[in-house]
Amino acid sequence: MAYKYRIELTDVTLRDGMHAVRHQFSVDDAKAITSALDGTGVSLIEAAHGDGLGGSSVQYGFSKESEEDYLRAVCSVVKKSRVATLLLPGIGTVEDLKHAEELGIKAVRVATHSTEADTGAQHIEEARKMGLDTVGFLMMSHMTPSEVLAEEGKKMASYGAQCVYIVDSAGAMLMDEVRRKVCTLRNVLSSDVQVGFHAHNNLGVSVANSIAAVEEGAFRIDASLAGLGAGAGNTPLEVFVAACEKYGIDTGVQLYPVMDAAEDIVRPRMHQPIMTDRTSLTLGYAGVYSSFLLHANRAADQFNVDTRDVLVELGRRKVVGGQEDMIVDVAFEIANKK
Amino acid sequence: MAYKYRIELTDVTLRDGMHAVRHQFSVDDAKAITSALDGTGVSLIEAAHGDGLGGSSVQYGFSKESEEDYLRAVCSVVKKSRVATLLLPGIGTVEDLKHAEELGIKAVRVATHSTEADTGAQHIEEARKMGLDTVGFLMMSHMTPSEVLAEEGKKMASYGAQCVYIVDSAGAMLMDEVRRKVCTLRNVLSSDVQVGFHAHNNLGVSVANSIAAVEEGAFRIDASLAGLGAGAGNTPLEVFVAACEKYGIDTGVQLYPVMDAAEDIVRPRMHQPIMTDRTSLTLGYAGVYSSFLLHANRAADQFNVDTRDVLVELGRRKVVGGQEDMIVDVAFEIANKK
Repeated sequence: MAYKYRIELTDVTLRDGMHAVRHQFSVDDAKAITSALDGTGVSLIEAAHGDGLGGSSVQYGFSKESEEDYLRAVCSVVKKSRVATLLLPGIGTVEDLKHAEELGIKAVRVATHSTEADTGAQHIEEARKMGLDTVGFLMMSHMTPSEVLAEEGKKMASYGAQCVYIVDSAGAMLMDEVRRKVCTLRNVLSSDVQVGFHAHNNLGVSVANSIAAVEEGAFRIDASLAGLGAGAGNTPLEVFVAACEKYGIDTGVQLYPVMDAAEDIVRPRMHQPIMTDRTSLTLGYAGVYSSFLLHANRAADQFNVDTRDVLVELGRRKVVGGQEDMIVDVAFEIANKK
Repeated sequence: MAYKYRIELTDVTLRDGMHAVRHQFSVDDAKAITSALDGTGVSLIEAAHGDGLGGSSVQYGFSKESEEDYLRAVCSVVKKSRVATLLLPGIGTVEDLKHAEELGIKAVRVATHSTEADTGAQHIEEARKMGLDTVGFLMMSHMTPSEVLAEEGKKMASYGAQCVYIVDSAGAMLMDEVRRKVCTLRNVLSSDVQVGFHAHNNLGVSVANSIAAVEEGAFRIDASLAGLGAGAGNTPLEVFVAACEKYGIDTGVQLYPVMDAAEDIVRPRMHQPIMTDRTSLTLGYAGVYSSFLLHANRAADQFNVDTRDVLVELGRRKVVGGQEDMIVDVAFEIANKK
């Protein structure tokens, strides 16, 4: 068939998927998953703690094995794909990145909140100096209006990012919003800077959102085997490849091997099924990142209100990490209104 | 918020969902699910064997309890929603329908293959005479070109159907195809005949397809709690309602009660998680109904070929129920080509 679009896929099973297994994949798991992906046509395989380099900690949860051991293992296995990692400035450092580069990674995604591209300036610049394929990653993009988001993307490009991602961290976006945001960003970037899109399935539309992103000009799309990822999971790689095949989008990825990898390699290693359940749906509907959930549950219990009402109000107030103290206030106000 | 569209939802948990539990819901299960749905704003609750009235048989699998007991139970519980049932001419009869009407159903969906609307003529006419809300249900719509499908829909309307459904039985359609088919059908029907859409999630796009259908003029949408249904399941009701709420589509359904019903009433009653796994994805990708799967597996084993190649070729040849003998031929040909 004649393809209408050509794109490249980045697999995030060994990074975002780490959230779904509480960062407990073994080095052998990482090798098995990498082997299954390598040679299928996936262009990048991202590996890191769910929260990126340096994420293994009391605060974000300890990984089963060391960052160095994972990266060394993944890099030792790949023959065709390239290995990427994730860096959140404030959690990981330029030193961490240098070490990862020595271990063999070829690409890095520098992730900031969608209004704080400037906090990634130094890391993006340094990554380019190291010769890495350098990607800017605008998290929680649903909270930021298209025009503002596009300006943040331009900043990332000005620091040296070769691709800028719109990241729907909370799985809160629907197709119309994805179209608007991707299109606006695409229009302000020069043609040599790519646009990427990273979805979560909290509203059940990760595959459709990713297709919409491609139609608006996104060239790199994130996905993970069997959808393994935080919340309701990411765009399931094998489902997306099948849908693209039917839709006229050339992913360069072979369908049957990724179907088999999802079913035979990843699903048996899951701690629980990845699905849009009550909790993940609530987070997507409210547009709140999953780190708020535990606190919201506690506050809701304390004031005898519905956790969902608390999360929806927090979403309305556009809270970000660090504003957890607002949760109790919101629960208190809802209780008073009743 | 101001809504852009208003639609009505039909819940199919107790009909299509019956496939996913091998028709083994008890009368008490049926009552619990109906109670959870009634009063949430769902306009119709469909109840029947997965294959409709008369489906409980050696050929289609026996239900745990009798058709009469299910329908009596469901009708005894509802206060606000209306009860619908499904009738496939050739499996169920007009006599079955009369009996169901006596038990209290208010609506029937008469289902035919998407090119055989005429086989439902008599049943639709009789249903109207009984005063039932009468729906024509065009199954396996992905196999039939938009213009042909629209003509079949016109036939159903001419027999008396008050609504005509495009039914993506194999979960093989993507958003562009849904738009084309719904739009073409909408344009040939008079404005007093509604259009409906029934999705399966085999390509992971049931929610997005249903939204696309609404945008093209579909007024009735099918969904089921937690997506319980054949293959990769149907459009999950609670996810669809949340997405519609954010998208500006007024479903008339309260979100939290259906989220709770999915999580607390239906998920604990599932035999296995509903998901787009290798098998259901293959069926959606191939565009083949699940009844072919077992035969295709057997033939693939016999000739040492990949089941997926067999199913994809069957999809290409547009096989329909009754052509199972072709499966062995296809497997044989694939083996010969190797």
